[in-house]
Amino acid sequence: MQKYVPSCKEEQDFLESYDPKAFDSVAVTVDAVIFGTARKPSANYRKSDELSLKILLVRRKEYPYKDSLALPGGFVLLNETLEDSLNRTIKNKTGLKDVYSEQLMTFGEVNRDPRMRVISCAYMSLLDSEKANVVDAEWFDIDSLNNLDIAFDHKEIINLALAKLREEINYSDIVFHMMTDEFTIGDLQKVYELILGQPLLAAAFRRTIADKIEDTGKMSGNLGHRPSRVFRYKGNHN
Amino acid sequence: MQKYVPSCKEEQDFLESYDPKAFDSVAVTVDAVIFGTARKPSANYRKSDELSLKILLVRRKEYPYKDSLALPGGFVLLNETLEDSLNRTIKNKTGLKDVYSEQLMTFGEVNRDPRMRVISCAYMSLLDSEKANVVDAEWFDIDSLNNLDIAFDHKEIINLALAKLREEINYSDIVFHMMTDEFTIGDLQKVYELILGQPLLAAAFRRTIADKIEDTGKMSGNLGHRPSRVFRYKGNHN
Repeated sequence: MQKYVPSCKEEQDFLESYDPKAFDSVAVTVDAVIFGTARKPSANYRKSDELSLKILLVRRKEYPYKDSLALPGGFVLLNETLEDSLNRTIKNKTGLKDVYSEQLMTFGEVNRDPRMRVISCAYMSLLDSEKANVVDAEWFDIDSLNNLDIAFDHKEIINLALAKLREEINYSDIVFHMMTDEFTIGDLQKVYELILGQPLLAAAFRRTIADKIEDTGKMSGNLGHRPSRVFRYKGNHN
Repeated sequence: MQKYVPSCKEEQDFLESYDPKAFDSVAVTVDAVIFGTARKPSANYRKSDELSLKILLVRRKEYPYKDSLALPGGFVLLNETLEDSLNRTIKNKTGLKDVYSEQLMTFGEVNRDPRMRVISCAYMSLLDSEKANVVDAEWFDIDSLNNLDIAFDHKEIINLALAKLREEINYSDIVFHMMTDEFTIGDLQKVYELILGQPLLAAAFRRTIADKIEDTGKMSGNLGHRPSRVFRYKGNHN
């Protein structure tokens, strides 16, 4: 933003004598709900690798909620924007830059942090987790969320992100941020199913996404598995 | 939220000795984009009253941006949630409680306020402006926005709210928060047109909203104007 220019000496004096420390202290954090897809080899060699939907969480090393899992994030520094703070967190935990993110909602319950008044601006980020080089954090299956001990109100934030993701994949292309560059329609359908939490009919699914993808001319080569056509996302994410 | 219980004496000591003042001071504000509809008598007595789409703004009495117009809002107090802060602002300026609001986005550019680092959580609120008893604020025509001197980044916030409102009226019922309890289809169409910034075809519009409204059995009685059927919103806003 452009630097503000005081209109007169009086205003300049007012701004110079303004004491931020005179107010009650509120802290602002950015917390990131980072979703990714990961592939793990199937136990049955005749079946293709299984895709799963993951969330990146951090084990807390300090009070409060020591040893619980929390969303990656932290206090917003005085000289960084919310997006700077988010991108710094994502870079630190995954090694990735330019990750797709959108602001989710800001959480401001009075007692949500026992240390002090903390207002958290939550973001949702989507990536292909196999591109990530995870440091000081861990991927968890979305299915396992109910069994995890989650700190603060972060479970509520995660549930809101999941609801938003479910809504948005129906009218946007954001799901492709979580796909490898090339994929089979089966892979893509699986990711939709994981997000929506229900199986989809293959024929109907193909119609839904037909306009968004294009055939690469290649075939997938999973051992012991019938080869499938390989596609790529046709649009661009601008 | 439930009160947090420290897990042990060590954690209790940690929390008791935690000093919020030790950190850089960040302030959080809530700013409200309050849209309303208002009716003004037409200059031509053969025409029905004209509806207009309005936004509520406050003339700043203090530095910075003294004498410019700004969104109603202010610093979030230590013991109030974001929604408490929003509702306090709305009550102070309009006398209204239980106004429909939704969180828009949080704005965190580093230099958006020359006094100190201020992060603003913006909301959009919708009401029938004839119900409001405006104090210390003023309604402005949306059409006049480009000619107004707007403080901070509030013009950007307003434009985002307008874009969201345009998007949401197509798939939700929120527009009825801005209508009087009873209205003609012409009134409703006019409000849609004001929000969308373009004329709509009456027949197509009727089909779009047919399921959402019901006939009251009454007729509008504008002098010199052909009477129209009067409708009400059929759903409820839960």
